[in-house]
Formats: sequence, structure tokens, C-alpha cells
Amino acid sequence: MLKGAAVIGQSGGPTAAINATLAGVIKGCFNNRDTITKVYGMKNGIEGFLKEDLINLTNYFESDTEEKLNILAATPAAALGSCRKKLPAPDADKEFFDNLIELFRKYDIRYFFYIGGNDSMDTVAKLTKYLESSDYEMRVMGVPKTIDNDLQATDHTPGYGSAAKYIAATMSEIIRDCAVYKIPAVTIVEIMGRDAGWLTAASALPRIVSGEAPDLVYLPEVDFDTNGFIEKVKSCLADHPNVVIAVSEGIRGADGKYVGEGTQSGVADVFGHKYLSGTGKFLEQLVKAEIGCKVRSVELNISQRCAAHLRSETDINESIGVGCAAAESAANGTTGCMMAMNRAEDKYEITYEAKAIANIANMVKTVPAEFITKDGSNVTDECLEYILPMIQGEAKNYYKKGLPVHLIF
Amino acid sequence: MLKGAAVIGQSGGPTAAINATLAGVIKGCFNNRDTITKVYGMKNGIEGFLKEDLINLTNYFESDTEEKLNILAATPAAALGSCRKKLPAPDADKEFFDNLIELFRKYDIRYFFYIGGNDSMDTVAKLTKYLESSDYEMRVMGVPKTIDNDLQATDHTPGYGSAAKYIAATMSEIIRDCAVYKIPAVTIVEIMGRDAGWLTAASALPRIVSGEAPDLVYLPEVDFDTNGFIEKVKSCLADHPNVVIAVSEGIRGADGKYVGEGTQSGVADVFGHKYLSGTGKFLEQLVKAEIGCKVRSVELNISQRCAAHLRSETDINESIGVGCAAAESAANGTTGCMMAMNRAEDKYEITYEAKAIANIANMVKTVPAEFITKDGSNVTDECLEYILPMIQGEAKNYYKKGLPVHLIF
Repeated sequence: MLKGAAVIGQSGGPTAAINATLAGVIKGCFNNRDTITKVYGMKNGIEGFLKEDLINLTNYFESDTEEKLNILAATPAAALGSCRKKLPAPDADKEFFDNLIELFRKYDIRYFFYIGGNDSMDTVAKLTKYLESSDYEMRVMGVPKTIDNDLQATDHTPGYGSAAKYIAATMSEIIRDCAVYKIPAVTIVEIMGRDAGWLTAASALPRIVSGEAPDLVYLPEVDFDTNGFIEKVKSCLADHPNVVIAVSEGIRGADGKYVGEGTQSGVADVFGHKYLSGTGKFLEQLVKAEIGCKVRSVELNISQRCAAHLRSETDINESIGVGCAAAESAANGTTGCMMAMNRAEDKYEITYEAKAIANIANMVKTVPAEFITKDGSNVTDECLEYILPMIQGEAKNYYKKGLPVHLIF
Repeated sequence: MLKGAAVIGQSGGPTAAINATLAGVIKGCFNNRDTITKVYGMKNGIEGFLKEDLINLTNYFESDTEEKLNILAATPAAALGSCRKKLPAPDADKEFFDNLIELFRKYDIRYFFYIGGNDSMDTVAKLTKYLESSDYEMRVMGVPKTIDNDLQATDHTPGYGSAAKYIAATMSEIIRDCAVYKIPAVTIVEIMGRDAGWLTAASALPRIVSGEAPDLVYLPEVDFDTNGFIEKVKSCLADHPNVVIAVSEGIRGADGKYVGEGTQSGVADVFGHKYLSGTGKFLEQLVKAEIGCKVRSVELNISQRCAAHLRSETDINESIGVGCAAAESAANGTTGCMMAMNRAEDKYEITYEAKAIANIANMVKTVPAEFITKDGSNVTDECLEYILPMIQGEAKNYYKKGLPVHLIF
């Protein structure tokens, strides 16, 4: 039994579920008070830890524990703050790691939990590697989160389900909004995801629920062909007046260049800056030039990752569950792992399993080819059936005077 | 007693509450079956009516009335479709109106309800005027809706409360999202409203609820001064790293030109089109050029008017109430009026009152000067206390397999 304090950090981009995972890790630690004697939170990830910017979570959650944890789980973004620090290679900067170990020793930290995406798992992997040659005993666990759903070794990532639910519900609403006029019009909805199209795929979910859905869905997994795109849009317009298109911000041409990248060179604003038009804005201009109908583009923007008011209950339960499982597993001796989610084959059932971090960090999981239609302009029903269970249920929200209540440390 | 059928139309931009008002008018008509013998909906407003594109709402809502009306009230955008047709002046095009009357006669329509904003009230006013010199007896009622809250003669407009709630809640979430990093950063949130700043004002509501709010709030009611703006932003950045700014899309300089309008002339895209950069995008470029810190702009876009998943219960109850009151009032003999909402002085209590349409149409109600701080960079607490009651409560949503259920005719 390794007795000592735990420290929890959040890192990378915020999500609507990363605080639910934090709540889960805290719960798991509190369930193991014999071994995990105290729980610290590091403010702004490893960067804050290096400055000893810590918060005593044991004290903070001592009273009204459940109520506070519930509100924490309903709070968007990273309540502890985040950072984007990349650790040096363990053999390249011994001093950096010695300094870290010194701080762990100072606070008697024996459990290290890092909640984040690919870059954060890199931090967990490097720390694990360094500890192998150190005499300091500490258990290191990565806990996944990312709206992008692009982590290896886990069926899906906590945070994805809530983002997917927000995007799919918003797409339903946008389609309703587009349907009110009868003149031909194209609406292009730009969705997050530079390399993986999971979020954009989710925008098509209403198709298998209500029958309504975007006409065309473009993921970064497929080379984008502007001519083929215009032909598709024309064909949709010939069929019905309100055409809705979902595009991932990361779509690229066969040359590997981001769509719209080519146009930026010639355009500068009054200050002489190159104007970085977004993917949606570029396609809007393209449709206007090539087809000439009414067209607009909508960027769903940061609400995709922070719209906590519409979180998936399934996602939030799993986010808490994976955090809790990470703490339990570490208390039982696991180290150097990420807590992953396995999905049963016959029905939707999730189990948690610690998987070696070395095989996970820095690998991107994209949407598989069989989930994309042959012509590359939509996703298959199989893809949507795979995603649908993750958006089930509406997580409870807390309101005060008509506005959501958030926990702020 | 005037016995006959009713026809209901929706016009202008969609909102998250216009279908609740439709549900209210239908309810009010159903409550008066002795006089209002049948209820039609016109598809795409008066334009559809002219093509006799009608739906028999009496038949549609015959079975499962309450359930269907509840789902209708939870459906965003205009379920009957909308149009933006401006009627000719009654004395300018007699043929147009004679044609209309002919159609009313054909369907024995004696009650005409038109749900919409300023332009729709113009339609009601013109039709009322024409009927004064016609032998065809029909009662004409306008029912207000607009997220902009810019209609005269009513304390506020149905639809505003839900948009305000969505904007205020989203602003809370964006502020959480912005708080995760410690490096100086400016986030500019562009909010709808060309002439009236009511929606932008609502973004500051969290200030009187949780204490969190945008640092600066710019409404179109105040001449925008770019130099003063940059000084304010610098001063905020000196105080804390994450500066959040709410701006109305309609802010204009002292010369009356929209902010950003000046920059558009020199900028063209690859197709040779002038690039219409939005207000937020322009200010983003300005901050980058003048201050040089990390900056981004977020356009809340059409979700402001169609995010039915986060509607204000107060707004939805009032939206239903005002529609119902319009039908009751017409059944009792009122014509040529818009159904307005009066607010009690001592506590928040709304009563409905029919007001002569002639004094209402085409007048814009802006945010009064006493609701704006002296330096023009924020709204007063008094303004927020005025708006706050309108966003109270969360209207019930209906979900199927994790996605909102909408009623589609």
C-alpha cells in the first residue's frame, strides 16, 4: 500500500465534461482515504504545479461534498485551469524532472492524475518513463477527455458525447430555421475537428432519429474536391430549396492544403494582415461565385466545447466513471496507464480498463473509411448508430435566477 | 357575434418562441369554437395565403391536442413557414386587396391573426386600413414576436426572453471557457441586433446573478469610438488576463457607418467579391493590430433565435398567453390591434391589452439612455433588473433518443 497525497491536473482544451471527470477522480480518491490521504488540484496544469499553485481539494469538498461535486460536474471548461505545456524528453532535461520530483516529495504526492487529450497523455507518458529510473515512488494515471474523440485505445473519449449532442441538437434547430423560407438557399455549418471528423459526423445524427439531417457532410478524412462539392450542392438545390451542409474545419484538398488556405494569400485587411477566412466562409464565397444563390455560413465555435447546458447524461456518467475508476485503479497499484473505456459488442455497455500509456500518446484516431459513404459526401447509418448511444439522456443542470450555476474555485 | 373561420400566419425572422405564440392563438381559437368555427394556417405567411397554400389546423390538432400543442411550442423557427412580403399601400393597389378579400370570402375567413415583428405589424395595419372601406367584415389582429425586443407599445416582445436567456447562459459558458488559460487574451462576442441593443444588453445578465460578466458591452444606441474602445481594452487587460467583450452587430461610428464597413472596400476575395467582414471580426483585427495580444471573435449567430433547447419558461408562457389573448379578444369583437403586454410597476406581472395597430407599426424601440452607462461601454444594473424576470424558468423540452423533438407540419 502506497500512502500519500494525490494531485489532479487538467490540461489541453476545455470541454463540457472535463469537470465531471475531475469530480470523478475526486470521488475515487475520497473512496480510498486509507491510501490517498489528501487531494490537491494543480491550477493551470503542470505549469501551475511547478509554481506550487495548488488548491486543497480535500478541504474544499469537505462540506456539502455531493452538492459541490454535482455542480462541478455541470460546470464547463476546466475548473482548475489548463495549460498547453509540452514536457521535455525524460533523457533530455534531467534537471526539469528532478525539480518536479522535488516538489512531489515536498507535498508527499504519491498519486498523479492528469486529465486531458493527446498532449496530456504525452505528459503522462514522459513522467512515467522518468519515474522508471527514479527512486521516488508515485503512481501516474492519465484520464482521457477531448471533444474530438481522437484518442487511441479507448472506444470513445469523455466529452465527445456532450459535444456531439450539442452539435446534433443545434443542427436540428438550424434545419428548422432554414426551412421557413422557400427561396433556394445554402447554409454551411462549420464544425470543430482539424484531423478527425467525429464531431462533424455527429451533426448527421438527427437522420436516424427524426429523418431530418444535413444534405452533405464533409469530414477531414476525405480529400475535399471543390468541383465535386459544387456539383453536389447544385444537385441538392434541384431537389429542394433549403440545402444544409456540415463541414469540418479541417477539410483539405488532395494537395493536403486546408480548404480556403489558397485564398488567404491575396487578401489583407486595412492593417495589412492576411485575412484568415474560415473553411465555412470560404465555401460560402465559393457557392456565391459558382451558383449565385442565397448562402450563409455558420461557425458553431466554442459552444461546441462549453455548452454545458446541453450535456449528454451518458457522457457525464461515463466522464465521472472513468475519473473514479482511474483513482480506484491507482489506489490498487496501477501506474503508467490511461484509463480507457471498452464497449461491449452486443449492447451499449461501458467498462473501464487501465491501458499502458506508452502505446497511446500522440496517436490520432480518425473516422474509419467504412463509416463514410463511398462518394465521401456523408456518413453511413452504421457510423450514426455507433455514435447515438453516447448522446442519450440530458444531464441535470442547476439554475439560479434563470442562469446556469457554475463552480468557480 | 361574427361567425366564421380563422387564418393564422407567421412572418419575418424565426424565433424560438413564435411557435409557442402559434400554439396560443390555436388554443384561443379552440376556446371559442362557437364563433371561430375552423382554424387555418397559412404556409409562408401572406405569400402562401395568396397561393391558397393552407393547412387545416382544426383537423391537424383534433387528436392529441395538448401533446401536439406542447411539442409545437417547443419547436424553433416558424412551423407554418415565413415570408418577408411587404404589402402595397391600401390606396395604391386596390386590385391586390380585392384579390385578398376574395380569398377571405372563399374560405369564409373572419379572423386574421398575423404573428411577427415590425414588418408584420405593417401588414396588419394596411389590411386594417383597407377593411375600413370594404364591406367585408373581418377581425384583424397582430401578435408580436421578435427576439430584438424593438416593438413599440408592448413592455417587451415574446421571443426576446428566450433569446436573452440563451445569450446570457452562453456568455456565462464562454467566460468559463476563457478563464482556463493565464495568458492575456481578448474574446469578442458578436450578438444580433442592427438597431436595438436589447440582446447585447442581455449578455451582461450574469453580472447581477453570479458576478461574472463581459468586461465591456457595446450597443448600437451609442456611437462607437475605436480609439476609446482600444483604451478600454488595454485598461481591462492591465487588470486581468481574460477580457471578454460583447458587441452588437449593429454598432456604428459617429459618422453613422457600421463598424467594419470602412474596411470592406479594399478587401476582395479570389472571386473578386468584396469581403464583408463582420463587426466582431473587424474588432478582432483591430485589437490584434493595436494591442497585439491573443484575440478571437465569436459570432453567436442563428442559435440566438433558434436555440429552442434553452427557452425561458416565462417567455414561453407569455408567448402562449399573448397568442391566446389575441384570439379571445378578436372573438370578443376587437380588430385592428396588436396584442401587447403590460408590466405591473411594483412586481413582475404581465397583463395583455389590445392596442391600436396604427400607432405601432414601423416604430423601433431602442434601449433607453438611462440603461446605458455614461461612458457607453456597458449597461446599468437597472437595465439588467428590467430584463432578468423575462429569462426565469426553463421551458420543458421533449427528447427522443437524445435529440429534441420538433413538430413539422
